[in-house]
Amino acid sequence: MEQGCLSRATMGRLPGYLTYLRSLPDDTRYISAAAIARALSLGEVQVRKDLSAVCGTGKPRVGYERAVLAAAIECRLGVHTGCEAVLVGAGRLGMALLGFGGFAEYGIEIACAFDADPAKISRRVLPLSDLPSYCRLHQVQIGIITVPPDAAQETADLLVGSGIRAIWCFAPVRLELPRGVTVRYENMALSLAHLHQAITHTS
Amino acid sequence: MEQGCLSRATMGRLPGYLTYLRSLPDDTRYISAAAIARALSLGEVQVRKDLSAVCGTGKPRVGYERAVLAAAIECRLGVHTGCEAVLVGAGRLGMALLGFGGFAEYGIEIACAFDADPAKISRRVLPLSDLPSYCRLHQVQIGIITVPPDAAQETADLLVGSGIRAIWCFAPVRLELPRGVTVRYENMALSLAHLHQAITHTS
Repeated sequence: MEQGCLSRATMGRLPGYLTYLRSLPDDTRYISAAAIARALSLGEVQVRKDLSAVCGTGKPRVGYERAVLAAAIECRLGVHTGCEAVLVGAGRLGMALLGFGGFAEYGIEIACAFDADPAKISRRVLPLSDLPSYCRLHQVQIGIITVPPDAAQETADLLVGSGIRAIWCFAPVRLELPRGVTVRYENMALSLAHLHQAITHTS
Repeated sequence: MEQGCLSRATMGRLPGYLTYLRSLPDDTRYISAAAIARALSLGEVQVRKDLSAVCGTGKPRVGYERAVLAAAIECRLGVHTGCEAVLVGAGRLGMALLGFGGFAEYGIEIACAFDADPAKISRRVLPLSDLPSYCRLHQVQIGIITVPPDAAQETADLLVGSGIRAIWCFAPVRLELPRGVTVRYENMALSLAHLHQAITHTS
């Protein structure tokens, strides 16, 4: 079984496969990639590739054992193991992410936010000074940065010092991070600009 | 001059080039790709490629005329022509995007939001019934969907009917759209899941 990273596109299709597998009648023991592709209106080659990355190649003629395939997908999605993330910066974007329910589908929970501003402290927003102890106690691995740009690096340093291994950064900066810490930058403005460019330069 | 679509990566570097060009002393008439690459700690090949996509190849030995290059970048970013986008769904995410200042760098303004809920109407949130007339009057080309999933398709239909040519969709659905309408889906949960996967399967 391939244990490398799945592409973003494959990851995006996994919840759909899982939902379909769970929707099958209880007595469905085997399911083929072809049947899944038909049911979900996807290309068969793509489905075969996705499933083989998650669960090997299946059995000739019968396909995948349904329960085994579902378990493998659940494992890749982290549905059972779960993963807790924390967020720093309880502004509008931070609170929007904190209130967003869609992460659960991927087994991820943003448990709480932290903010340096005492006026923002609430049930789900804790003082920034509590961040290190919280992260260590809950073994949090992912930190989300939604602070203003000038506070982003010190926030990243604090997260890394608290044991965080991956950062999702919404501040428009380049962070200096030690090796071994993964970062993903989210640039909202760039996404919109790219869409704008697409209609401007293809018309 | 190449007028095709620029890659997302190139688009992301354009504001940096522009800022640098504007920071040069007034009497700087020419600037080379090599000098820009050094100043911004970028690879020279990459900078050459970016600039040639925006402004041709420059003059041998002296490089680009600074004012011409800046104007070409401003044009690609839409700094002067500008572009107005509207947003439908004034929930937390919608309001976070509405309040986000970073779009201006790319010449894009989210002028106002629309919502079907009368309780949400404010100075910058208008009744949904005003959407078609607003879009036609202001010749809005981009619509942003931040409504719940079950309202996304009808919102898209309304936007398309109001003359919108591009949709930025935050609802986790697949929209049915007429040919000629560009769509970009933003899946926040997937971004975070992918980051999670990166640390889970590389350790």
